[in-house]
Amino acid sequence: MPSTRYPRPSERDDFGRVLSFTDAVFAIAMTLLVVEIGVPETIEGARDDPAALLDAFADKGPLIFAFFLGCYAIGFYWAAHHRFMSWLTAVDRGFVILTVVYLSFVALLPFPIGVLGEFGQNPISVVAYAVNMGAVSGMETVLFRHARRRRLFREELPEGVYRWALGSSLLPVLAFALSVPVAFVQP
Amino acid sequence: MPSTRYPRPSERDDFGRVLSFTDAVFAIAMTLLVVEIGVPETIEGARDDPAALLDAFADKGPLIFAFFLGCYAIGFYWAAHHRFMSWLTAVDRGFVILTVVYLSFVALLPFPIGVLGEFGQNPISVVAYAVNMGAVSGMETVLFRHARRRRLFREELPEGVYRWALGSSLLPVLAFALSVPVAFVQP
Amino acid sequence: MPSTRYPRPSERDDFGRVLSFTDAVFAIAMTLLVVEIGVPETIEGARDDPAALLDAFADKGPLIFAFFLGCYAIGFYWAAHHRFMSWLTAVDRGFVILTVVYLSFVALLPFPIGVLGEFGQNPISVVAYAVNMGAVSGMETVLFRHARRRRLFREELPEGVYRWALGSSLLPVLAFALSVPVAFVQP
Amino acid sequence: MPSTRYPRPSERDDFGRVLSFTDAVFAIAMTLLVVEIGVPETIEGARDDPAALLDAFADKGPLIFAFFLGCYAIGFYWAAHHRFMSWLTAVDRGFVILTVVYLSFVALLPFPIGVLGEFGQNPISVVAYAVNMGAVSGMETVLFRHARRRRLFREELPEGVYRWALGSSLLPVLAFALSVPVAFVQP
Repeated sequence: MPSTRYPRPSERDDFGRVLSFTDAVFAIAMTLLVVEIGVPETIEGARDDPAALLDAFADKGPLIFAFFLGCYAIGFYWAAHHRFMSWLTAVDRGFVILTVVYLSFVALLPFPIGVLGEFGQNPISVVAYAVNMGAVSGMETVLFRHARRRRLFREELPEGVYRWALGSSLLPVLAFALSVPVAFVQP
Repeated sequence: MPSTRYPRPSERDDFGRVLSFTDAVFAIAMTLLVVEIGVPETIEGARDDPAALLDAFADKGPLIFAFFLGCYAIGFYWAAHHRFMSWLTAVDRGFVILTVVYLSFVALLPFPIGVLGEFGQNPISVVAYAVNMGAVSGMETVLFRHARRRRLFREELPEGVYRWALGSSLLPVLAFALSVPVAFVQP
Repeated sequence: MPSTRYPRPSERDDFGRVLSFTDAVFAIAMTLLVVEIGVPETIEGARDDPAALLDAFADKGPLIFAFFLGCYAIGFYWAAHHRFMSWLTAVDRGFVILTVVYLSFVALLPFPIGVLGEFGQNPISVVAYAVNMGAVSGMETVLFRHARRRRLFREELPEGVYRWALGSSLLPVLAFALSVPVAFVQP
Repeated sequence: MPSTRYPRPSERDDFGRVLSFTDAVFAIAMTLLVVEIGVPETIEGARDDPAALLDAFADKGPLIFAFFLGCYAIGFYWAAHHRFMSWLTAVDRGFVILTVVYLSFVALLPFPIGVLGEFGQNPISVVAYAVNMGAVSGMETVLFRHARRRRLFREELPEGVYRWALGSSLLPVLAFALSVPVAFVQP
């Protein structure tokens, strides 16, 4: 009868748990977006009328657009996190705690994305989305700076790379900040 | 007191994160399908009447059918991705980005599957399902071609295998495309 | 600048993906159960009246009971899968496909569990739960037999262990089958 | 053609599955919280009126507050579990079963957190949250004691550390217990 004791592998992977927890939060936030589209239960016309169902799909247009916008926002943040973590050689307790804060803003993203799908023509929905994206990007910067101060990077990053990475993490925030006045101007 | 620094294992597994993120998106898309069935809160008759609850289950028949259809569609796409990735020896940044696009179509699947459960007799629901399946299969092909061009396969695939794999990934699309006119013809 | 190519670790872990996909489906099925309880938006009485909120909780009693029943059913199936997989030395393509079928019944569990919470006094809700549990246990047996026929076990299991494991996987099905007539008799 | 048999890596990682199942439950519980906020479908005023959407956000204030409260409660429990597991050198069958019980209380957390968002001014909502937090903390203590009795720790923990860890896991329970009378006193 096999033993009922399950030993830890020789290489401890407490580092990997931070990745798997993060991956799960991103994957759920991205997949939950589909719930917001909502399956219609009735349509205007006979249930087997192709034109009536096509109309129902057309009404869902902004929600489907918001779904893809949200998928790519969340997906590309995940890809950025994947690249960032590939540079690290360790994490510490502070990094774990900051990751929880970072993930709280990622987990919130489906809310402004859903609002954008419902009220895309309302400038406040763009502002809410920009603020949430800004919080995620901001926490990315905090994680980056923490990793640099605690020497968690695999090798010393040259100053240029550091600035470039900081900039590219703040760029979407800037782009959204600029989009806010435009949203208000749009008639 | 144990250290609060968690080192990365000696073998870096940035490859594995692409798998774990993908696995989570597939698992959530598959498990979310059950929400679409919906637990009835009232039934036509006394709450403890077996016949009334059986009737309620019968009404759920198409939704339960769509649940299993969706489970196997998503599950077999996952199994295909599992086989495909077992042939790779590495991924690159482009592959990560394309994977996000691929997963956006996987995450969307619960929507047409839910529509199929509600409006199975409407040919447009079959079209919507076929279009979404086609997008997933199409992105599979894009990933396959990218992996081949960037030499990510473990060994050189013979031309025959390459064609066979491409064909088997496009076969479901073809099958669905053919099913669309049938759906319109069905009275 | 670090490379943008992420190599696969030297030990290929296609085995592990079957575990991580399974773990995610179980975890989501278990955690989704809480959605079925439902947060009340109004209560009978003032919103800050402790007695009124206590009454609302009391009304949720059967739903909370069903939540825990479902958590332990799903959790113990997961623990059984964990033990079973710890005996295997490999999986094959057939095992991957059968796992998808097995997981489709696991993913369905929140539906009969939700029905049991709403209609616990209706014998049909017990039957539906028993049928779903039976399907999961039955697929466990199918996986077990497949693993034995394809020699996926780490060592030859003695005949006694094989019978014991089969029996213990079918025991819950038997217990539920027996509970069905009892459910009908209960006034 | 590559083989269709996927061998288990040389180091068996049945330990790791307990971590990945736990990580997934925590991640889902945390990410599901956003569903409770709820995207408004209508607002009081024109759909493109910024002030009307701002009002709708203001109405969501308590729900957004509860979202962050819940994220940090669940996130910090996860961080505590991460630290705790980093001290272990193995788990056994009993630990697996106790983990399922522990996770059932984690999976329940979105319910009292949602109630707190809806009925924050009602002392019973604080009590329900405190009871659920207490159950999670209590199960943490049970896991800790089990690990100590079965010698699952990497090294012998000095008595002081043991007491400190027990205390710090019971501290939130005590804090919440103390907050309950305060909740009732608040007018």
